[in-house]
Amino acid sequence: MSATVGYDDSPSQKQFSVELKSDTLKGLVNIISALVDEVKFSITPEGMTLKAVDAAHVAMIEVKVDKGAFESYYAEDCEIGLDLDKVKGVLKLASGVDLMRMEQDPSTGRLVFKIGNITREMAVLDPSSFSDPKVPDLHLKANIGISVDELKRGISAADTISDHITMKANPERFELSCEGDTDSVSLSVEKSALVDLSTDSEVCSMFPLDYFSNIIKAVPGGTVINIELDNDYPMKLLFGIADKHVSVNYLLAPRIESE
Amino acid sequence: MSATVGYDDSPSQKQFSVELKSDTLKGLVNIISALVDEVKFSITPEGMTLKAVDAAHVAMIEVKVDKGAFESYYAEDCEIGLDLDKVKGVLKLASGVDLMRMEQDPSTGRLVFKIGNITREMAVLDPSSFSDPKVPDLHLKANIGISVDELKRGISAADTISDHITMKANPERFELSCEGDTDSVSLSVEKSALVDLSTDSEVCSMFPLDYFSNIIKAVPGGTVINIELDNDYPMKLLFGIADKHVSVNYLLAPRIESE
Amino acid sequence: MSATVGYDDSPSQKQFSVELKSDTLKGLVNIISALVDEVKFSITPEGMTLKAVDAAHVAMIEVKVDKGAFESYYAEDCEIGLDLDKVKGVLKLASGVDLMRMEQDPSTGRLVFKIGNITREMAVLDPSSFSDPKVPDLHLKANIGISVDELKRGISAADTISDHITMKANPERFELSCEGDTDSVSLSVEKSALVDLSTDSEVCSMFPLDYFSNIIKAVPGGTVINIELDNDYPMKLLFGIADKHVSVNYLLAPRIESE
Repeated sequence: MSATVGYDDSPSQKQFSVELKSDTLKGLVNIISALVDEVKFSITPEGMTLKAVDAAHVAMIEVKVDKGAFESYYAEDCEIGLDLDKVKGVLKLASGVDLMRMEQDPSTGRLVFKIGNITREMAVLDPSSFSDPKVPDLHLKANIGISVDELKRGISAADTISDHITMKANPERFELSCEGDTDSVSLSVEKSALVDLSTDSEVCSMFPLDYFSNIIKAVPGGTVINIELDNDYPMKLLFGIADKHVSVNYLLAPRIESE
Repeated sequence: MSATVGYDDSPSQKQFSVELKSDTLKGLVNIISALVDEVKFSITPEGMTLKAVDAAHVAMIEVKVDKGAFESYYAEDCEIGLDLDKVKGVLKLASGVDLMRMEQDPSTGRLVFKIGNITREMAVLDPSSFSDPKVPDLHLKANIGISVDELKRGISAADTISDHITMKANPERFELSCEGDTDSVSLSVEKSALVDLSTDSEVCSMFPLDYFSNIIKAVPGGTVINIELDNDYPMKLLFGIADKHVSVNYLLAPRIESE
Repeated sequence: MSATVGYDDSPSQKQFSVELKSDTLKGLVNIISALVDEVKFSITPEGMTLKAVDAAHVAMIEVKVDKGAFESYYAEDCEIGLDLDKVKGVLKLASGVDLMRMEQDPSTGRLVFKIGNITREMAVLDPSSFSDPKVPDLHLKANIGISVDELKRGISAADTISDHITMKANPERFELSCEGDTDSVSLSVEKSALVDLSTDSEVCSMFPLDYFSNIIKAVPGGTVINIELDNDYPMKLLFGIADKHVSVNYLLAPRIESE
């Protein structure tokens, strides 16, 4: 088998050839796979973007990766569809290895990962099989800046109480709460303990706990998340990873209680 | 949601309002849940006690928690029934948090846990649904003082051999043993390696391994356990946790081999 | 129960009485149980050997343990059949305990393990129920000396691609590769990164991944393995553990692709 024959290091023959820290790819894949299993990257000479919506159309994610996230970056305009579970498998090979290379083989179209002396060729998915969701432009009343670690604690507290989580903000505090039939739990964070809190009035919406939990658990510890919130309206989560070279915009539809 | 509204810090309005280290509650719950899933605490101004017997009436536990186990303690005479699985869930929230507060809400009757900025309200169980087992006053011939770590080693050794464990003491040594069809195992500890050993004659009883294993595994490493033993008689385990502010008396019925 | 009565420390009454580090026995059992669950040890005054073939006759292992692997060793010529799962259970008792004793009880024939103050008696298996496989004397063209850690990385990379692994060597490099329907992976190691590489021509054989993976995962990190390879021929793995007092010879049949 001569899997590596036919590759040379001249980027001029390839549409896509980049080098990046494996931790950067890992962080990116963790975030995206909190919502979808397969994704299409739209690639330009300046970076990569992706937009994805889950099958139930409850949440949407938009991720922008600028070329500064890479150690080296060469790309022409192209689209690459990937199975994220396979990419996770590749990332396991990179434990302890700092840098990895990703290239698209111009003859086979396969994505080639090079990690140390391992070469892994992966079939890509047809880009035309992915929809291009339109990200709505929302203007929400309240903005809360909070460490993801606080949110992770709130989620564990909510875990067995209910399937829904209520998020509330007023000029004094931000509150996560969960109300079950017999039990309840709340996490209340005063303005002084938040990175940011700006709202003129009280806003309150309820969300599906599993979606919120999945995305929050995927965010690296120490990250500050900006939550935008309104009354019975979607919530927007904005945050950066990989030294902010990767920016994430996550939208989650509210659960409106029927009267 | 305003779960915390209505609480003030004046203990005079509450029947029960205490502050304790989360490790103290964790140790207590581990011990009790080795035998039962639900328990009734009998509370007085001086401390808490509980007595419980398992559904099969094979073992009985009596636990006394004096108010010195708490950082602050205010209680009127009352009874609180708790689902220990729920309390374990609450304790997961306390990882890395030293102190927690427990209060009974006088209006709803719910038990309220406050851990940092998390407030967790839990429905309590009807105290009248619990029986009040009478703890027999046994006088047993042999007394063995031994580190729980030795017993834990003996239990792992016994694990796959048999469902029963034989405990034997004579003036020279204490022995745990298990006899299977083809295999056997024994742990023999000389008097010099025990904390205490006092018996005039040899005593020997056999016990169900799973009960003994469950309680021993729940005891924190380093604890000294006093075992009281006789011939074909229940065994009594006496030990303290939380700087001996919590004292445990555990009785386990023997298995009498029919001839 | 008096499981330990009848044992004394005079080796003259026993066929087999040895003392060894529990880590030595653990390493040995890990290797053998990668292929079989039960094994017969052939014991002489100079050491122990075993030969085993798996039920499907795809792989064969020959292990020689010289008496230098033991802290103390006394044995007459004998054979002992063992259930390796039971021995693994015994090894769990030895965590944190350096030395253990193994003796055969001359009256019951049982193997007796003594670990600190624990005595574990184990029924042995009938030696006559084991076959004595003849280990073929192979002369293979290529010899590769490589750290087992490189092979472990190659195996993880191959894991989800295919059930087979191709091993190839030529005078410049050694290569592991796996070819699936849409994906492939290869690990290529240059001669300079190998401990040894000697072959005049290119050799290539394909092997079942699960067998190769099981044995490689059982080899302690840092071990150098000698691989002998030829064209569509069995592969031979040679390595030592326990300061080379245990030497292992493992043969794995190739998969010959039918045309």
